Amino acid sequence: MLCIALLCLSLGSITRRQLVGYSSAAVSYLPIMENVKTKASVYIATTVDGYIADSDGSVEFLNQYQSSASEADGDMGFADFLNSIDLLIMGRKTFDQVISFGDDLWPYGDRQVWIWSRNPSVVKIPQIRSSNAVAVSAAPNELMRIAQQKGYRHVYVDGGTTIQQFLQQDCIDDLVLTRVPLLLGEGIPLFLKTPRLSLEHVSTKSYSNGLVQSHYLVKH
Amino acid sequence: MLCIALLCLSLGSITRRQLVGYSSAAVSYLPIMENVKTKASVYIATTVDGYIADSDGSVEFLNQYQSSASEADGDMGFADFLNSIDLLIMGRKTFDQVISFGDDLWPYGDRQVWIWSRNPSVVKIPQIRSSNAVAVSAAPNELMRIAQQKGYRHVYVDGGTTIQQFLQQDCIDDLVLTRVPLLLGEGIPLFLKTPRLSLEHVSTKSYSNGLVQSHYLVKH
Repeated sequence: MLCIALLCLSLGSITRRQLVGYSSAAVSYLPIMENVKTKASVYIATTVDGYIADSDGSVEFLNQYQSSASEADGDMGFADFLNSIDLLIMGRKTFDQVISFGDDLWPYGDRQVWIWSRNPSVVKIPQIRSSNAVAVSAAPNELMRIAQQKGYRHVYVDGGTTIQQFLQQDCIDDLVLTRVPLLLGEGIPLFLKTPRLSLEHVSTKSYSNGLVQSHYLVKH
Repeated sequence: MLCIALLCLSLGSITRRQLVGYSSAAVSYLPIMENVKTKASVYIATTVDGYIADSDGSVEFLNQYQSSASEADGDMGFADFLNSIDLLIMGRKTFDQVISFGDDLWPYGDRQVWIWSRNPSVVKIPQIRSSNAVAVSAAPNELMRIAQQKGYRHVYVDGGTTIQQFLQQDCIDDLVLTRVPLLLGEGIPLFLKTPRLSLEHVSTKSYSNGLVQSHYLVKH
């Protein structure tokens, strides 16, 4: 799956230095705050025709934007977003892909990661991630209920199928969508059989490498 | 089909007054200019999840943006775009839908209209449009060759299937895509089995009613 983290990682060393090693939001022992609504966000790049990866899951088509990114583009707000996150819920395929880049490029510091899978027993978690990653299989609304009970405040939901399932249960509060200037033609779509949901446009920003990032709130 | 014209027509009387009655680009007897490249443009609204209409072809979901449009939003550049157009090539379903709104809301003045259909004999052209509308069935690249031979300079390509077929033959030069802040969930997609095409981002503008309009050039 193409998450914005992977895109940022592909944008060169400036961005990479900004991303790697974040560890400011360790959340292992947060107090229980049942009355505080836990927010769930999507932060992802798609092609103009709505794909987040090639049909085989590859995101090699992003490489062409590496050379065209300028320092002014920065990390397209990803570090600020990540700083607000205290829990990631990501699909197994996305987790496997991020792991495949090696631990030097693990973007999420020691934040807690829930790897969402229908069959948690098959999820392989490397030793280096064993302290902050765990496989889970509950339904999205149940996961969000547990996250709230545990005191997490802001969840980053990532991975195509995971995002679709969370949208289907109206568990997403906002989306930051970054449009890559490309028609891919076929691949893995971000949106597929999601319910009808009205959005509120918050802001849009365009970057020198042709990427356009829009922030939307979901109207529940 | 949802073309931006229909969206503009739904945005209230300010826009409607701007759109109806354009007649500044009559092009029946243009000189033959074979060496001038004829440009083909797409100008269309899609939901954030990429649909241009409900599954039944309806665009009623646009009504909610009628009340939220402000005078400052204007017509989102549609009149300027239309002023640059001297030929429309649109699918039969799109033509039927625009016709259904009545001649008072016909947005295209007396510009030439080619109604693209696999079976031109079934296309019904109202008497009032008989002087400037004609049914055609040639392939997109052949239609563009004829348009160029006839001296047309800027073609507005409209309708989901028509746009897809033109993209498949790399006959589109630029796209103005207006994103409506809505996840529709299902419907008629704008992009479907198009080839892989790189785009160049020209500009993006957002409007007070939450619509975000981006202009892309197609890199041939």
